[in-house]
Amino acid sequence: MPRPIPLFPGSIRRRVFKLHLHPANHRHSFLHSVVEYPLTYPIYTIWASNTSVGKTLVSAGLSISFLSAKSSPVSQKKFVYLKPIQTGFPDDSDSRFVYRKFSEFFAHKPLPFSVFASNYVLNASIPASDAVLGNGVVGGRIGNETLGAGLDKERNFGWKNLRWYEERKLLGSDSSESELPVSEVVCTTMHAWREAVSPHLAAEKEGAIVGDSELLHLLKSCLWMNKERTCNSAEEPEMMCVIETAGGVASPGPSGSFQCDIYRPFRLPAILVGDGRLGGISATISAYESLKLRGYDVTAVIFEDHGLVNEVPLLSYFRNRVPVLVLPSVPKDMSDDLMTWFDESQPIFLSLKEIMISDFVQRTKRLREMPKKACDVFWWPFTQHKSIPKEDVTVIDSRCGESFAIHKVQDFDWISQQFDACASWWTQGPDPHLQLELARDMGYTAARYGHVLFPENVYEPALKLAELLLESVGKGWASRVYFSDNGSTAVEIALKMAFRRFLTDNNLLSCHERANVDGRCMDLKVLALRGSYHGDTLGAMEAQAPSHYTGFLQQPWYGGRGVFLDPPTVSMYSGTWKLCLPEKMQILNVDQEFLSFSSREEIFKINRDGSSLAGLYSSFISEELLVLLDSNGLSQVGALIIEPVVQGAGGMQMIDPLYQRILVRECKDRKIPVIFDEVFTGFWRLGRESAAEMLCCQPDISCFAKLMTGGIIPLAVTLGSDAVFEAFTGDSKLLALLHGHSYSGHAMGCMAAVKSLKWFKYYNANMKIICESRFLQELWDTELVLQISLHPVVHRVVALGTLCAIELLAEGCNAGYASTYASSLLKRLREDGIYMRPLGNVIYLMCGPCTSPLICLHILKKVYARIHEFGQQKSTSAASELGIC
Amino acid sequence: MPRPIPLFPGSIRRRVFKLHLHPANHRHSFLHSVVEYPLTYPIYTIWASNTSVGKTLVSAGLSISFLSAKSSPVSQKKFVYLKPIQTGFPDDSDSRFVYRKFSEFFAHKPLPFSVFASNYVLNASIPASDAVLGNGVVGGRIGNETLGAGLDKERNFGWKNLRWYEERKLLGSDSSESELPVSEVVCTTMHAWREAVSPHLAAEKEGAIVGDSELLHLLKSCLWMNKERTCNSAEEPEMMCVIETAGGVASPGPSGSFQCDIYRPFRLPAILVGDGRLGGISATISAYESLKLRGYDVTAVIFEDHGLVNEVPLLSYFRNRVPVLVLPSVPKDMSDDLMTWFDESQPIFLSLKEIMISDFVQRTKRLREMPKKACDVFWWPFTQHKSIPKEDVTVIDSRCGESFAIHKVQDFDWISQQFDACASWWTQGPDPHLQLELARDMGYTAARYGHVLFPENVYEPALKLAELLLESVGKGWASRVYFSDNGSTAVEIALKMAFRRFLTDNNLLSCHERANVDGRCMDLKVLALRGSYHGDTLGAMEAQAPSHYTGFLQQPWYGGRGVFLDPPTVSMYSGTWKLCLPEKMQILNVDQEFLSFSSREEIFKINRDGSSLAGLYSSFISEELLVLLDSNGLSQVGALIIEPVVQGAGGMQMIDPLYQRILVRECKDRKIPVIFDEVFTGFWRLGRESAAEMLCCQPDISCFAKLMTGGIIPLAVTLGSDAVFEAFTGDSKLLALLHGHSYSGHAMGCMAAVKSLKWFKYYNANMKIICESRFLQELWDTELVLQISLHPVVHRVVALGTLCAIELLAEGCNAGYASTYASSLLKRLREDGIYMRPLGNVIYLMCGPCTSPLICLHILKKVYARIHEFGQQKSTSAASELGIC
Repeated sequence: MPRPIPLFPGSIRRRVFKLHLHPANHRHSFLHSVVEYPLTYPIYTIWASNTSVGKTLVSAGLSISFLSAKSSPVSQKKFVYLKPIQTGFPDDSDSRFVYRKFSEFFAHKPLPFSVFASNYVLNASIPASDAVLGNGVVGGRIGNETLGAGLDKERNFGWKNLRWYEERKLLGSDSSESELPVSEVVCTTMHAWREAVSPHLAAEKEGAIVGDSELLHLLKSCLWMNKERTCNSAEEPEMMCVIETAGGVASPGPSGSFQCDIYRPFRLPAILVGDGRLGGISATISAYESLKLRGYDVTAVIFEDHGLVNEVPLLSYFRNRVPVLVLPSVPKDMSDDLMTWFDESQPIFLSLKEIMISDFVQRTKRLREMPKKACDVFWWPFTQHKSIPKEDVTVIDSRCGESFAIHKVQDFDWISQQFDACASWWTQGPDPHLQLELARDMGYTAARYGHVLFPENVYEPALKLAELLLESVGKGWASRVYFSDNGSTAVEIALKMAFRRFLTDNNLLSCHERANVDGRCMDLKVLALRGSYHGDTLGAMEAQAPSHYTGFLQQPWYGGRGVFLDPPTVSMYSGTWKLCLPEKMQILNVDQEFLSFSSREEIFKINRDGSSLAGLYSSFISEELLVLLDSNGLSQVGALIIEPVVQGAGGMQMIDPLYQRILVRECKDRKIPVIFDEVFTGFWRLGRESAAEMLCCQPDISCFAKLMTGGIIPLAVTLGSDAVFEAFTGDSKLLALLHGHSYSGHAMGCMAAVKSLKWFKYYNANMKIICESRFLQELWDTELVLQISLHPVVHRVVALGTLCAIELLAEGCNAGYASTYASSLLKRLREDGIYMRPLGNVIYLMCGPCTSPLICLHILKKVYARIHEFGQQKSTSAASELGIC
Repeated sequence: MPRPIPLFPGSIRRRVFKLHLHPANHRHSFLHSVVEYPLTYPIYTIWASNTSVGKTLVSAGLSISFLSAKSSPVSQKKFVYLKPIQTGFPDDSDSRFVYRKFSEFFAHKPLPFSVFASNYVLNASIPASDAVLGNGVVGGRIGNETLGAGLDKERNFGWKNLRWYEERKLLGSDSSESELPVSEVVCTTMHAWREAVSPHLAAEKEGAIVGDSELLHLLKSCLWMNKERTCNSAEEPEMMCVIETAGGVASPGPSGSFQCDIYRPFRLPAILVGDGRLGGISATISAYESLKLRGYDVTAVIFEDHGLVNEVPLLSYFRNRVPVLVLPSVPKDMSDDLMTWFDESQPIFLSLKEIMISDFVQRTKRLREMPKKACDVFWWPFTQHKSIPKEDVTVIDSRCGESFAIHKVQDFDWISQQFDACASWWTQGPDPHLQLELARDMGYTAARYGHVLFPENVYEPALKLAELLLESVGKGWASRVYFSDNGSTAVEIALKMAFRRFLTDNNLLSCHERANVDGRCMDLKVLALRGSYHGDTLGAMEAQAPSHYTGFLQQPWYGGRGVFLDPPTVSMYSGTWKLCLPEKMQILNVDQEFLSFSSREEIFKINRDGSSLAGLYSSFISEELLVLLDSNGLSQVGALIIEPVVQGAGGMQMIDPLYQRILVRECKDRKIPVIFDEVFTGFWRLGRESAAEMLCCQPDISCFAKLMTGGIIPLAVTLGSDAVFEAFTGDSKLLALLHGHSYSGHAMGCMAAVKSLKWFKYYNANMKIICESRFLQELWDTELVLQISLHPVVHRVVALGTLCAIELLAEGCNAGYASTYASSLLKRLREDGIYMRPLGNVIYLMCGPCTSPLICLHILKKVYARIHEFGQQKSTSAASELGIC
């Protein structure tokens, strides 16, 4: 007989009852809840390929095998079983089943040591709760009076914090057991509904709803309750947890979302309970594929034998990827207590447990060794390897929408979460929904097309993308789509297009041929703005002004074949949008009224074209061009290339759109083809589908990449007008544009782009696109942005679309690309779960077109707080320096 | 009562009995069978998300709705039902069920016109056949005596060509019906087994096996029987076909392969019969995802209502992608004849039929308009658009392993197949198995990672790939992996690496700084071989000798910053491998013995290093370098770049490996870093994992791309030695290599590469890799290659690894890159189902490392035949020209 035990044993008592549901109308309160879990013990999710294939038998079998495995006599083992969703309660209670079967098994076959077994039910719908209280379910109890007194208050939102539990102590066979620490099996039902139907129906019917994030939040709390038990990865862990899902992998949870989607943010390793019946091969394979399509790792497949040797085709499919285990047939007699079956199945469950533990140990080991290995074999771009100790390497386990799941080690290992605020170098668009949609499309496209040849051929994804582009960002001017792989190649192609068009349009091709005979060569220049960046291949480099990227150290061939103009910029300085003229222009007689703006919208107003500033810009540009064209008879400006509105890599500088518009006009007047490099600015990055739209003018050629595929795989396009295209037609193949890459217009990239562009623009749920799909709603809280710009350590701010750039006030070596001025700030922000990268003393936040403004607010608040802290440190250190002086 | 009808009605009679199984030991005879199907009428595959969810009810319902839909009174409709795999026969016979339900339905509710309904069983296992013959199944008959006499002969390989059929004529209600053409419902079981178990078990047990390709071949024949009925896409088609699968989507077929894999080469549009029961949501979603992961298009989901409103979550999942239809509950009473149910279900089936027809009509319409649209919006690389009429555009519907499925229109529309012999521009590796494996991995990786930031981070796919590369192609020399997007960017990075290493190693960095003060610039050159190709971005272009690709027309900035040597080449000329020395070398005193080789192996023998030819090469190279280095004090050769063994785009020229080895040695002696551009040659392209292995020497830097991802998405790497890496370390970030692309080391590319590289090298089934994973087996039939080289129209042949290049004898404008000399030949080959692209007068066949030599033989034979025909045409036209002269 169990001796008297405290009402709530050990650590459980103190914690379990803190966990209860937040009211349903706070459903979004966990929106920013960080999904984290400890890696100190193995946690697995048990999935099933069908209903009624025996998930709970597997859980119970595991509890038995885990506790009965040989281990050091002093170890205090703990097996945690979690059932987040239970319908048909209390008649059906999987946690109770596990609790009971475990207890029965060891009542017959005592372990050497004693075990506390317990079963808790945390939250129940009113009907489920009434059924428990009314019918007096045998063996269970409700928490003490004090706790119980709060019941009525908690009968809100369809839920009752039930506090129902049952427990027993199983005495050990070893007489010296009283000396031994007590092991535990803790079974918990997190949410229970009365009706034996799908959870989404039960939740609706019983008025007891739980949102996906609430569910995850409670699950997270349950997982963290036990983190103090650390695991020495070389040994058998003392603890193990299984989370049992309800129904099949894609059965709806209480919110109606599929369970495989709900649990995705944790991405816990999976055990798939297969189906040994007729049709079970198909069900098992398909369930496995649904898990893979959501990024889960399946550690093992286990199923009950029905005499159909389903394991043969399954083993052939899984090859060495996933072990397949077969359980003996379960007695059909419902009165059988299954003790014999559990006994017979023990070798299989022991194998399964071994596989699970060894997988866990390997995973943790690998995660720990990855930083060193990375430092040994990678050559990261833009990275001074000498300055990266392995402790600073971030191990990314996965991404879910806008966030990374990262591995952290401090006192113990865990998986944490960081918001990808560098938007993985400006490519990212997907939220968690779009990511899974894209995953399915990627699988489909790889299976349907793989990659097929593009020239002279047509296939749906490439055609659809070309059509989409010409209807959207190319509308009104572009007629052709040229595919390549990245922004840099798209720019190289754009330059080739522009030069040919220029030479044809100005009848210079034949001139060149004559010139060539004389041994002289025409010096074609590209007109560009200082501070712009167009990529790292030589042709793209040549179109940008000398900088760190282009120095002799980087590419001795760089000559700077451009004519580079200094542009006027616009930023928010101390709460006001101001125009900042380059040095050369400062001698101009610019009216004060033009030097600041009442709002950001004012900057983009087309009526500025009629201002005297427009005239000043125009004559200034004309003069500069005149000087250039006169200086050398051989020099010609064959193309203009600009990043419209915002220069990205050059430090997130917003260029006065009026200036760019005038510049484009001046070039068009001179038959100089205009290239817009929208690699960074395209597809809602700045709040409009293209930055050209914001400039209110059209280029002859335009480059897009990055966000185009939703941020999933490389693809770039160069759009050209009909006039540009015509410069390449003729009788000879040698007139054609002879530039290509192997994966030109590759199907997967095109498919990802088609899906993403439509999703960004039209997807019903993307309420962030407003005004007939023309504007992205404001993502960065206006007031907070203003506050940040007012902070003394902040020089300027540009918040526009998905971008919020903050230049920290810095001088000397603290300013510029190579500066590490912001590193302490960014380090603190990573602790806050925000992953940012600096451009020297410019830091920026970037999200996707689908990101919720609530998330942006949350992130921006943290940034503001850390900037403030940073400022205080700076003033302290400045004061102490002053003291030294 | 049906009036007397011929034993086998209409066209069926003449054809059906031609179709019978080929013996199982000819299982590979259909390896090259072209998978084609007509697009003159809708053909759908009916899949189920589970067993017993009512596929056959859906088929029967469709037969009724198709026949009963209003249409022109003169139309002669035909509904074809095919059941390729039937177990439990004759007790279970789905084709019989459809036949009977259709007949019963219209016996009660006659149509205006008469209908012949029939049910055929083509092939039965001996036990299934015995059961039919022994038990005398009611209503069926066996073909006439003459046909029946052959029975015993056909009791081979476990099969019997059963020739069992039943039929009836259903008289029309319209008295004038005798004037009308007779409509038909033809039901056919293709293969039947006795046992009611999974087909793979039945096939094994009953000794009646049918290979996947045999199954497809028979299915194809059944589909083509009816192609004479053409469809005017504007109208309701007169014919429709459904193919009903067995069990769930991934249930094994008779060979043990999953049915969703077996039918993949056809990739017919799918109707998914969902599951309305508890757990059915999950089963339906997972089955759908398994179909998508194999590239199928699902046109509609239909399922039986079980009162669980499963359609709500399903509709939410499918959104507007796929219509979801709900059928009334099927009476549980087994004695119910279902006539009332069919009656009630008719509106649903009519909707389903409408959806299927409209989808078919749209698909065909889109396929037809794609060439024109492509000509309107695409800008293909390397393509003179003026020379491509829309008739020449290939519409690629999908790819399956090494072949494209293409849309063809002549008298009618159909989907045909072409072997991708340009291996989609040298990227392709996957066979159909690897393609589906990659599809799953792409879905998984997109779901797990999407894309995550690379610099300073680590994630499994990138790390695993880097480790794999350093253990394989980088083994023994490389220590670092730099990621980029394509061969061209990989080369730009390689050049930057080499230059820095050169400058550091030769203490020239500080020299340069001084020089720069004087306003002078060091002129760093790259040493390269004439005819090589390294990509189309400016930096890569600069490293190649002037050619069509690099002219002023293409990129006015090209200067040719290389020093270009003419290399000696090797090819098979008229049956013998011969060395061809460049003009400059022809003055050298080269022994005749060195000018030809007894075998291809001899060319690669390392003992050639000791020959006098090696000495000649060495001194020749030394002299050339001396001249170059002396000519200008500012010029320095800062890097060597070569395509080892074979120059690809330059015309598939094999360079004497001895020469390249000596060249590498000479450069290493002079501290000139050596770059191998293995973008084309890497990963088994030439029969070894790297071409460096064939050269028996190691570079300092190496570039890989193309085949690396298995030919699915862009990814490139530049490998560098430790010495190269060290040239970039230091205290300042500005010393780091500041070159990067947004998708650096993107997870999907890395994952595809990890899977592909392992698959190519180790996958058990890839028996094409031999000798401890070091050599690819010979793919091109040696004798046939020799024959081709002997043909008078052939100048030379290079067959090596996956490449078989054939240079046609041509002169003047018929030779070279812009030549269209080979176009008539290639046009004929496309008719033969071989898709090739020329490099001027050089044509080539390319396959993947997993391609079977049998397929290669088959293709090469066709090429030989067409070359012969081409030769005859040329001699005829030459003769006629002679006549004119």
